[in-house]
Amino acid sequence: MGILVVGSVGLDDIEAPAGLRSGILGGACSYFSTMASLYTKVSMVGVVGTDFPQEHIGFFQGRGIDTRGLQIVDGKTFFWSGYYGPNLDDAITRDTQLNVFADFHPVIPNSQREAEFVFLANIDPELQIEVLEQVNAPRLTALDSMNFWIDSKKDVLTQALSMVDVVMLNETEVKMYASNNNLFDSARHILALGPKALIIKRGEHGAMLITRGEDRGHSVFMVPAYPSESVVDPTGAGDTFAAGFMGYVAKTGELSSQTLRQAVVHGAIAGSFAVEDFSIGRLRCLTWKEIMARYSEFRCLTYFDTLPESECQVFRQSIL
Amino acid sequence: MGILVVGSVGLDDIEAPAGLRSGILGGACSYFSTMASLYTKVSMVGVVGTDFPQEHIGFFQGRGIDTRGLQIVDGKTFFWSGYYGPNLDDAITRDTQLNVFADFHPVIPNSQREAEFVFLANIDPELQIEVLEQVNAPRLTALDSMNFWIDSKKDVLTQALSMVDVVMLNETEVKMYASNNNLFDSARHILALGPKALIIKRGEHGAMLITRGEDRGHSVFMVPAYPSESVVDPTGAGDTFAAGFMGYVAKTGELSSQTLRQAVVHGAIAGSFAVEDFSIGRLRCLTWKEIMARYSEFRCLTYFDTLPESECQVFRQSIL
Repeated sequence: MGILVVGSVGLDDIEAPAGLRSGILGGACSYFSTMASLYTKVSMVGVVGTDFPQEHIGFFQGRGIDTRGLQIVDGKTFFWSGYYGPNLDDAITRDTQLNVFADFHPVIPNSQREAEFVFLANIDPELQIEVLEQVNAPRLTALDSMNFWIDSKKDVLTQALSMVDVVMLNETEVKMYASNNNLFDSARHILALGPKALIIKRGEHGAMLITRGEDRGHSVFMVPAYPSESVVDPTGAGDTFAAGFMGYVAKTGELSSQTLRQAVVHGAIAGSFAVEDFSIGRLRCLTWKEIMARYSEFRCLTYFDTLPESECQVFRQSIL
Repeated sequence: MGILVVGSVGLDDIEAPAGLRSGILGGACSYFSTMASLYTKVSMVGVVGTDFPQEHIGFFQGRGIDTRGLQIVDGKTFFWSGYYGPNLDDAITRDTQLNVFADFHPVIPNSQREAEFVFLANIDPELQIEVLEQVNAPRLTALDSMNFWIDSKKDVLTQALSMVDVVMLNETEVKMYASNNNLFDSARHILALGPKALIIKRGEHGAMLITRGEDRGHSVFMVPAYPSESVVDPTGAGDTFAAGFMGYVAKTGELSSQTLRQAVVHGAIAGSFAVEDFSIGRLRCLTWKEIMARYSEFRCLTYFDTLPESECQVFRQSIL
């Protein structure tokens, strides 16, 4: 049944060293759906206003994305404006207008309640719980959140965290949630709530997967960020990461520790492509062949013992 | 012929969250020699004062380290005092007394001029060049430096960089040397001076190896830092990293790209042990078996496709 994703669909104004773009397609759900549709069938649940360009909906549908859960209501679409400094560090928000998103409550169409994989993008944890209450025994659920909800709705967020299989947060959020400056103590704190796995996003330093072990303790996997030389716009990198991860898991249908590791690599690959253009520009034309080529690059980037000669021919050349 | 190392041998006062230690053995050359002696024969070149405890020299000799290049001159030994805050971030220097190190000029004993591997720890680049002028065609030379020399003696440092095969710097220093905030541009800038490889140390984020390619461009390898839960004292982590790297290269005698990658992993392993106690406390009792166990852990930490079942049994367990 593929992936059900719930999250924001919006329009963005973004300024970055590479230029200024106005009214471009944004929102976690847009990034996630576009990327995940390269792997599997995706159903999106969200809300837009009547000002939302029909061409975007047509684009989603053209990629086989089920948009029946995308509500179109009177009013304006969620809007975000932000800019990035020369180092492309964290975005500075200039303006956020919730618009139709303010009164949004997700309604999962009957046809999608049997979704095997559910991704709850970064929205109000109350809405994330509403979604979980509408789906029937998905095989894997995952959740993203942010500092705003840790600050303002920690109790509800805690409940949501306890209901999902995989939690994705960035390093700062993990420590902030646990009120603990030690990353591993903080991770254990979150895993003790119930999730089987925690993915810690570390921006330019990659990502970490911590899976709960029964008798052997927790298992840690780390992947670096792709050494990208052409970062244009970091917006949506985390949502696209989630799409690579969930997409790969859904495509393989396996939940082994190995599959999850490979899925994290697909997350890193997805994120690395997302930042190469504004909005979903790079993802629109992304091919499976390009994904697999970068997967191979990740092996060359991280392996130190064995690697097929054909895959990385420089591996055994002498440097002198 | 093993490794020739030139650098500081000193006494440290260190305060960290785990406690306060006074007059403990310190200096890049001490950390390097102790660790590298687990891999191969090491000859140290440096200087101490007449106050330097004979027991330390006995310890070095007991590990088979050749101390004939360690000058003992009238005066006090190099002294450094520093402390670490609760996050164990960069050390804050309280006091540095060069003492006998102020007038030090390395003299390489005749018996060591044929050294196959030479490591120039972080000292005045003029002294690093003096060493290079005294050795006969080593197979591999490597150099460490720091912000102080980039600031005060950039021209001499540039000359030293152009004379060695491997440069080891931390991320900030790489960007600082190149006056460029882009890490890869900065790396290319340094490799263009002549070195075959650049190792970028990234502290809690691990390390990166960039090797110069002829026709295929540069090759990048990344290793995360070991997810250590018991950091006591970060002093000497970089020097011990260098020892794991050089030690492994010297032990294998190979200079292939693969060997260098494995050597970087050994560097990360070495650094991860060094920080588990004050001074060389952890390294004193470190065994080859422990090193190889951690090497196996690094495979479990970073591999996502293939791994011998025996080495990482959780790898294929389902998480749900």
